[in-house]
Amino acid sequence: MKLSKSFVKTLRAAPKDETARSAQYLIRAGYVHKEMAGLYDFLPLGLRVIENIKTIIREELNNIGCEEVQLTALQNPEPWQKTNRFDDQEVDIWFKTELSSGGELGLAPTHEEPITNLMRTYIESYKDLPVYAYQFQTKFRNELRAKSGILRTREFLMKDLYSFSSDEESHEIFYHKVEEAYKKIYDRLGLGDCTFETFASGGIFAKFSHEFQTILDVGEDTIYFNEDKSIVLNEEVLLPEVLDELGVKKEELKSAHAAEVGNIFTLKDKYSKPLSLEFTDKDGKRKTVFMGCYGIGVSRVMGVIAEKYADEKGLVWPENIAPYQVYLIAIGEKAEKIAKEIESKNPEAVLYDDRDARPGEKFKDAELIGLPRRIVISDKTLETNSAEVLDRKTGKTTPVSIEEI
Amino acid sequence: MKLSKSFVKTLRAAPKDETARSAQYLIRAGYVHKEMAGLYDFLPLGLRVIENIKTIIREELNNIGCEEVQLTALQNPEPWQKTNRFDDQEVDIWFKTELSSGGELGLAPTHEEPITNLMRTYIESYKDLPVYAYQFQTKFRNELRAKSGILRTREFLMKDLYSFSSDEESHEIFYHKVEEAYKKIYDRLGLGDCTFETFASGGIFAKFSHEFQTILDVGEDTIYFNEDKSIVLNEEVLLPEVLDELGVKKEELKSAHAAEVGNIFTLKDKYSKPLSLEFTDKDGKRKTVFMGCYGIGVSRVMGVIAEKYADEKGLVWPENIAPYQVYLIAIGEKAEKIAKEIESKNPEAVLYDDRDARPGEKFKDAELIGLPRRIVISDKTLETNSAEVLDRKTGKTTPVSIEEI
Repeated sequence: MKLSKSFVKTLRAAPKDETARSAQYLIRAGYVHKEMAGLYDFLPLGLRVIENIKTIIREELNNIGCEEVQLTALQNPEPWQKTNRFDDQEVDIWFKTELSSGGELGLAPTHEEPITNLMRTYIESYKDLPVYAYQFQTKFRNELRAKSGILRTREFLMKDLYSFSSDEESHEIFYHKVEEAYKKIYDRLGLGDCTFETFASGGIFAKFSHEFQTILDVGEDTIYFNEDKSIVLNEEVLLPEVLDELGVKKEELKSAHAAEVGNIFTLKDKYSKPLSLEFTDKDGKRKTVFMGCYGIGVSRVMGVIAEKYADEKGLVWPENIAPYQVYLIAIGEKAEKIAKEIESKNPEAVLYDDRDARPGEKFKDAELIGLPRRIVISDKTLETNSAEVLDRKTGKTTPVSIEEI
Repeated sequence: MKLSKSFVKTLRAAPKDETARSAQYLIRAGYVHKEMAGLYDFLPLGLRVIENIKTIIREELNNIGCEEVQLTALQNPEPWQKTNRFDDQEVDIWFKTELSSGGELGLAPTHEEPITNLMRTYIESYKDLPVYAYQFQTKFRNELRAKSGILRTREFLMKDLYSFSSDEESHEIFYHKVEEAYKKIYDRLGLGDCTFETFASGGIFAKFSHEFQTILDVGEDTIYFNEDKSIVLNEEVLLPEVLDELGVKKEELKSAHAAEVGNIFTLKDKYSKPLSLEFTDKDGKRKTVFMGCYGIGVSRVMGVIAEKYADEKGLVWPENIAPYQVYLIAIGEKAEKIAKEIESKNPEAVLYDDRDARPGEKFKDAELIGLPRRIVISDKTLETNSAEVLDRKTGKTTPVSIEEI
């Protein structure tokens, strides 16, 4: 991609009300545009990051037999009324709207009710189970306060997966598969080293749920962990009886700020019972489907990664999700010719800064935009038929021959 | 893909309130699920069709230098108030909602205002022009009556492209490029032969706009065309002065029902003026940006194609957008072994019906689901080391050797 062909430019300043460092960088570097508090547009670079994150999640979920669907954002109240979750007293983050032909609709903050209802069409017998269906869907949450840039917004992209099993035993097998898939996903996203599966509150239907928490200074949550991080738990379950059960003492635990990047939940019959999602089992008896749900906030993960790796110069993207791999700068006519050729052969990997601007400005933008490698070709490097490759993360420079590039 | 691994099953009947034939088939074949009037979920097969349509559109737009973005669905009223389009008297299909922290928001029925406003950040000088930005975005329209299945819904996927040029001349050049790109898109979608660019009303800012209309018995519109279809126009512009200008007589025109599958519009300064999207030109003067917009209803196109090609047995998908290329049926143990191998080598092209069901049932489902080719391998065909390939569109059967498959 030639930078001169893009409408996006780096900006000197972010909006004054934007206090999160990652959001300031994302706006200044041209990944997102702020519409208002809690509402962000994705610009070409940002959309590429989102698509890269989606691809990783999709591949790992398809690997464990999940199928992709896409449900509507507008919600018929009926199934939600059966679980008592259309009531604003019960769920206080609904956006609601009126149908011109009469009646109220909601904007889905999550999708347990419609997908449970949908499965009534497809699940009749034990032969139809298990079912694993997920979507990448825009969720709407009427947060009183949106904060931390794209970490907590009013409209965001989420991957939500729902499992439908015949009993607890087969549910547990899949639940474990998702745990493993999530670990692979965070590894591939570049968050493997600092993301931990934590014990979290399970609500009234399960003893624990699990969250995936990434250690992050500006994270909203606090997690507690032992020396080797074999036990990690959320603050909400830091209770004497839980510590006893896990065989660990409070004094042995350290704490850190963290941001939730995923959660997995055993739902049991919380939704399937009120919505009458039943099946006929091998023994001929009608039974209620056993459910689980598994979320990853896609745009939130992008924000966490931006926040986690940014330094005082700008963003630093892990290779697997960077919008391009290389920020290419050419100084001098001969170098420009070579750079043009490199870009035209690798338009999806190379962002070539072909703008009519001073090298110093290009160097600064390269740092702000944060692609994994910056390559500079100049008359000087061409004397040895090479280019200078700078690793954005380590700041180390190495010469590489032009052929190799 | 093995059919036994999918939760979707073909259904004997569609909901009683579903009168459109394409929607009945799409529901029965498991492409979509109806939430309520005007709201459809996309199931795995349907989502694959949507993704195939998106890929074709994306490739052709990227080819003419467009950049992909994604704007929010929730709308700050401010820019819309400047064009007077937040008013329900002016635009009568808004879904509106309340922010819990106070204030009204809208759900975008289209995106001229926010994208014009966004470009104020990026367009300052003639050097920043032209800009061509598009998105695939869910639009919300509070239609009094939703109808024709996925042809007219309350929530739908649209590709909307916006162009920003320095003057009418450069706008016209791009407008023409979009016309050509659209023709390529409809060709690749399998609608080339029956889709025509028509003269439509241009509103108060341009003499004509253009629509792309696909001839379709159940289409909402009526188009008029001359013998060689060099002149095609919408009913709304069938006026004496227009016919004079085009040099054609009303008696020379035939009519047909048609469905709009795209439109292109010269906006001039309709939005850029009230939203003050200006640039400094070469002569140092401040000028208003010249805009155009270009839409394709992605889910609508899917409905039009479904409606256009379906026959009395079910759906018939053109190759380029079919969710899979082949519906594979094996009869007998030896055939099953070969079929399994073929599927495992081509999981993205082959839908293998490995269900424990009678061949007759599989043949029926193959017709309903409508993949371009049905391949049957049986002990009988294996006698000649071949398989029977049935073309869904023509109904013609040809033997093909197993090696060739």
